Amino acid sequence: MRASVIFMGSDLPPLYRLGIVGSGQIARMTHAAALQLGITPRLLAEDLGDSAVLAAPDAVFSHPDALASFVQTCEVVTFEHERLDLGLLERLEADGMAIRPGVTSIRAAFDKMHQRRVLLNRGFNVPIFAELRSPDDLLDFTNVFDWPAVIKSVRAGLPGQRSHWIVENRGEAMAVISEQQGRELMIENYQSIVKELVVLVARRPGGNARCYPVVETVMSDSHCKEIRTPAAIGPQVAAEARELALKIADELDAVGILAVEFFLTPDGLVINELAARPHNAGHLTIEGSPTSQFENHVRGVLDLPLGPTRMNAPAVVTVNVVGAYDGVDPSQHLAEALAVEGIHIHLYGKSPFPGRKLGHVTALGDDLDQASELARRGEAALMGRRPV
Amino acid sequence: MRASVIFMGSDLPPLYRLGIVGSGQIARMTHAAALQLGITPRLLAEDLGDSAVLAAPDAVFSHPDALASFVQTCEVVTFEHERLDLGLLERLEADGMAIRPGVTSIRAAFDKMHQRRVLLNRGFNVPIFAELRSPDDLLDFTNVFDWPAVIKSVRAGLPGQRSHWIVENRGEAMAVISEQQGRELMIENYQSIVKELVVLVARRPGGNARCYPVVETVMSDSHCKEIRTPAAIGPQVAAEARELALKIADELDAVGILAVEFFLTPDGLVINELAARPHNAGHLTIEGSPTSQFENHVRGVLDLPLGPTRMNAPAVVTVNVVGAYDGVDPSQHLAEALAVEGIHIHLYGKSPFPGRKLGHVTALGDDLDQASELARRGEAALMGRRPV
Repeated sequence: MRASVIFMGSDLPPLYRLGIVGSGQIARMTHAAALQLGITPRLLAEDLGDSAVLAAPDAVFSHPDALASFVQTCEVVTFEHERLDLGLLERLEADGMAIRPGVTSIRAAFDKMHQRRVLLNRGFNVPIFAELRSPDDLLDFTNVFDWPAVIKSVRAGLPGQRSHWIVENRGEAMAVISEQQGRELMIENYQSIVKELVVLVARRPGGNARCYPVVETVMSDSHCKEIRTPAAIGPQVAAEARELALKIADELDAVGILAVEFFLTPDGLVINELAARPHNAGHLTIEGSPTSQFENHVRGVLDLPLGPTRMNAPAVVTVNVVGAYDGVDPSQHLAEALAVEGIHIHLYGKSPFPGRKLGHVTALGDDLDQASELARRGEAALMGRRPV
Repeated sequence: MRASVIFMGSDLPPLYRLGIVGSGQIARMTHAAALQLGITPRLLAEDLGDSAVLAAPDAVFSHPDALASFVQTCEVVTFEHERLDLGLLERLEADGMAIRPGVTSIRAAFDKMHQRRVLLNRGFNVPIFAELRSPDDLLDFTNVFDWPAVIKSVRAGLPGQRSHWIVENRGEAMAVISEQQGRELMIENYQSIVKELVVLVARRPGGNARCYPVVETVMSDSHCKEIRTPAAIGPQVAAEARELALKIADELDAVGILAVEFFLTPDGLVINELAARPHNAGHLTIEGSPTSQFENHVRGVLDLPLGPTRMNAPAVVTVNVVGAYDGVDPSQHLAEALAVEGIHIHLYGKSPFPGRKLGHVTALGDDLDQASELARRGEAALMGRRPV
């Protein structure tokens, strides 16, 4: 179907202005944003049928160790995921390659223990946490903190792979530890969550940064089902979340999009997780903002001026289209879904599989209820259901 | 770089839901709109470096006669240009292939004499016209009508090829005829043009249709420099233009986008030209409308419900980025252009050449002056000029 050649040798000028490591829907939408600006990125892809590969003429398929030669073919390289060899990235960065975001950000997103330590050391509010390498670690932690607790995988899992477990007692915790043998784990105190919030920061090398309005993610069955902006929070909490996100971006010297996930608890904002790339909660910026998170990611990593991050409407809502157990293929229901007036449908070209993110639907409106109702009607139509 | 196989044999099911014949920027942006809906179109492309080829993983390169086998690999085929073998298309349509728009529309767009005859026969207001096959034809026409006159090529030229000439006298007309030997020519009476307007109609097979607001094209050096909506015309003229465009779409049984170009003259609306595809004047719908002309073209040709065609802002202006004689490459000026706050930059990946359309800049605003000023600032920055 296609064949590509990677040219080797550091004396050659880079062939591509932008390389993207990864080939899922984040890479697909980042690729589309670059194309609009006249830039055809090269992908370092995983599988011929991947979402971004279906959309990108310049994809190379390769062992992950080919990263070094891939990087040499591009002026700037950015990343869709955190499943990377950090040591190799460090050497490439030290050799002067434009790895964006830099290894400092990638390490913080990649290694959740490291992320917690960095944030704690710099005075940010994170859950109480500990390594969980043995039953002794469990005992040490639970001697001091109450149940329930949260066990997490230190490294990001593969797409669809579970990475955290709420455990109510020692038995449940031990079961997770034994089930997840071979994965590095950590344990945290459970947060009483009023709301889950995400702030996206777009940042250039050197520190120029812009922040999107706070979005609220609505979970259902531990999947993020709906993303809404404005978040239903007071202006002080919103200002605090944005300020914290900008500070964290500065501390990590983030470049491109940094997504900061917060828990809003009865005691205030607690940092949940960081992602050093465009984020699922930011898809609503495609139609919802003058500059999508993907375009601002491209602008940021290429050190180009950032675009406006305000919203285009009083309310913007995205509903994720997630594979169901009945195996329904949303691409077979496009006609019904497009009949829902005024929604924006995005399908990622992925074959349906239970739990897999297959697409999303965005609606702009005058208020959250109206936008949410529209987006949910579109999602239901795609999934061959009547809307709830 | 890539290799593709076209499967032959009419017993095989089509491999692609949508095929696009052509590989310029119209194909590139149509491709992007299809991708968003989860559809990867196949292109029948002309050249490896073409704008759409840089953006499309599934491009096949082939002799134009390969159209028949290309059509067999796709459920639906649409067209970026009118440089087609109409006889072949007629046979394919008669064989039941989904050629969209149908041959009736394509023929009207392809052959300007035929277009004039069809529109005249159905009572639409067109310039007075005649074939121009010999100096005798010229004499016959100019015996009855005054100078100046307009000589046009009956068939669409190649991109960048001149297709009409305003001639002031017999000598100038004879010079065009002798220069353009081998091209079919026609002659028309000169229109006194107050404004040039375009109406885009999106239409499904069977007749369901929607119409975008009238846009005004501002010409400079016989190039369309700026496209503005709303057009600075009264509501009655606007309503009449939209009504005429919808009627023409019905008469031609148009599918996808039909662009109707009008001259507004002191005596009212005169139809200038038709294009049976997304049109340069419709690029402002990408950010300017909830549904771009490209998405509505894809929806129309696939017989999917059409999307809203209203505008997102009180004023939307696009300025074309056209290659200059100094050879400046706008992709080298992205940083300066992106620093113009609030514009949308589209570059087509084409190498700069004088007169070649390299991209466009769109701005939304509260009034036309503001939007136009912004878009012109963006275009000037891309071309390395200070804004006028």
